[in-house]
Amino acid sequence: MSRFWSPIVQKLEPYTPGEQPKRPPVIKLNTNENPWGPSPRVLKAIVSASDEALRLYPDPTATDLREGIASSLNLTSDHIFAGNGSDEVLAHAFHAFFSGKDAVLFPEITYAFYPTYCKLYSIKHQLIPLDDNFHLNPDDFRRACGGIVLANPNAPTGLAMPLDDIEAILKANPNVVVLVDEAYIDFGGASAVQLVPDYDNLLVVQTFSKSRSLAGVRVGFAVAQPHLIEGLQRVKDSFNSYPLGRLSLAAGLAAWEDTEWFEKTRDMIIADREKLSASLRALDFTVLPSSANFIFVSHESIPAEHLHSELRKRGILVRHFPAKRIDNWLRISIGTTQECEALVKALEVMIAR
Amino acid sequence: MSRFWSPIVQKLEPYTPGEQPKRPPVIKLNTNENPWGPSPRVLKAIVSASDEALRLYPDPTATDLREGIASSLNLTSDHIFAGNGSDEVLAHAFHAFFSGKDAVLFPEITYAFYPTYCKLYSIKHQLIPLDDNFHLNPDDFRRACGGIVLANPNAPTGLAMPLDDIEAILKANPNVVVLVDEAYIDFGGASAVQLVPDYDNLLVVQTFSKSRSLAGVRVGFAVAQPHLIEGLQRVKDSFNSYPLGRLSLAAGLAAWEDTEWFEKTRDMIIADREKLSASLRALDFTVLPSSANFIFVSHESIPAEHLHSELRKRGILVRHFPAKRIDNWLRISIGTTQECEALVKALEVMIAR
Repeated sequence: MSRFWSPIVQKLEPYTPGEQPKRPPVIKLNTNENPWGPSPRVLKAIVSASDEALRLYPDPTATDLREGIASSLNLTSDHIFAGNGSDEVLAHAFHAFFSGKDAVLFPEITYAFYPTYCKLYSIKHQLIPLDDNFHLNPDDFRRACGGIVLANPNAPTGLAMPLDDIEAILKANPNVVVLVDEAYIDFGGASAVQLVPDYDNLLVVQTFSKSRSLAGVRVGFAVAQPHLIEGLQRVKDSFNSYPLGRLSLAAGLAAWEDTEWFEKTRDMIIADREKLSASLRALDFTVLPSSANFIFVSHESIPAEHLHSELRKRGILVRHFPAKRIDNWLRISIGTTQECEALVKALEVMIAR
Repeated sequence: MSRFWSPIVQKLEPYTPGEQPKRPPVIKLNTNENPWGPSPRVLKAIVSASDEALRLYPDPTATDLREGIASSLNLTSDHIFAGNGSDEVLAHAFHAFFSGKDAVLFPEITYAFYPTYCKLYSIKHQLIPLDDNFHLNPDDFRRACGGIVLANPNAPTGLAMPLDDIEAILKANPNVVVLVDEAYIDFGGASAVQLVPDYDNLLVVQTFSKSRSLAGVRVGFAVAQPHLIEGLQRVKDSFNSYPLGRLSLAAGLAAWEDTEWFEKTRDMIIADREKLSASLRALDFTVLPSSANFIFVSHESIPAEHLHSELRKRGILVRHFPAKRIDNWLRISIGTTQECEALVKALEVMIAR
């Protein structure tokens, strides 16, 4: 604590990201990274952007990237906002749309950054309970509020919400922004992007960190009607004119355009997710049906915290959240086929004891 | 305007960056970029970081880069904060240290982003007048306030403030943060970094966009005592855990380490600045004595706006600010030797008419 910190900063509760070990452990399944690496076309695009032009500022409007994304979604580029990872896009969205006087609603168990943004921008929030199976009831969002945030699929559960439920929430709240955070949508579930033309209160956020395998580069984007995109741009242009550098813009566009690589790696992750889920169920784990690139699991007799630390000793990192209702669960990112098999073997040994 | 915008966003006055033309064959002297390109070691570092590891999140604490910067400043890394360009660092600093109830002070003519940050974070500000020669009087900062921001050298004037004056301001305001924005310090003037160990209220911000020729990559940093750095980290960790991607971290460190390239290109820019200043004085321009990589000039008979648009027709971009007191001035970035000569020739023709 410093006497120079502003009152807001004194009260902040910063988000704690998953551990990024300096030396790679044997197997890193703790931060939902893509095990397969980015498209070779991405690496080529970076190398070819690595030239004398780096002395020049990048395009502040990220036009090429936004047009690339827009055209494959059958939208115009004024429906797209690009940022330095989807965390930055989310932060700007909270600032742009939720800084009114009413509380914003989000599930009691979800991405832990949402309450952090609320503190940063002095936004009130109210948590919506999940049922015993970690499902949301869309009727719980029928109440006066300053906005709604839904991660779909939700994290860390991996559960997807049907598009009909999202549409019901959009219809029940026509005067506030409904933000659908689709960080994991490419691994299952139906994207709300198709609803954007019909709902002026819908803002969808996606990322290149997971299905496009670019966590190390930092690219995220939002899709919405132009009046919401303009709100985000106003915040961005009051914060940092150039959030995406030339290398990020080149990498992002190349990743977006290589649909073949995207589909191939996504399909491998889905296949390994289903195989890993079956193997863990056979070891007496409860495994929630995942639509993401991770699974959320709980063992019937061995505490999650114990499994977490025992796996760590064996060089396998998974994520454990010491929070109410989920402290006996582990979130396990889907690794390579080989990494998933190694995890199963390690668990078999630990459980057989 | 959208009914979904928060009250803050409705009132924002976003910063307008200098034009970034899509097609080059233009002499671009409008955004203070470095004409000489980044160190070849930077390009090598990017290429070697462009690999499968981009699937992994970057180091959220930017440890290697911060240690690299710290060690050459004879400080420890807890004195350094790194961000996605110095604009992001400045934004976080305004949020972290100036969101109290008193007005923050900065010069009436300075970097136009400062009042924009104030709007974004609902911070009051008060402008301190410059004298007829665009100089600041440090005594004008002897008043109750919520903080002080000084660009040194100032933009767009290019005038440097003596370190004694900055120290007087630090001493007169021991209970608020004095932010010294040193975007252009490497081209002249004395850095306040040397005062950091003595003043717990000093925050110095620098950038890789100018003297390190990495405007296209986005790297900036702050130097201060650890309690202020921690305040910035709290904001950053409540906004975006990973503001700097792997490519930016690699490029930044390589640029910092290549002191030979840095010194050689900086010296060329300073030499060309002095030569260009002399040439323009010979053409009846008033040229403020610059300590930056740009000059601020006004012609005795031809209006700045006319020169600006005539140069534009000849493919030469310079910056004109349509603001009180400076609307008859042009800010001209120092280009390559050849570009400076082309500018002088173009002006000679225009003035001879």
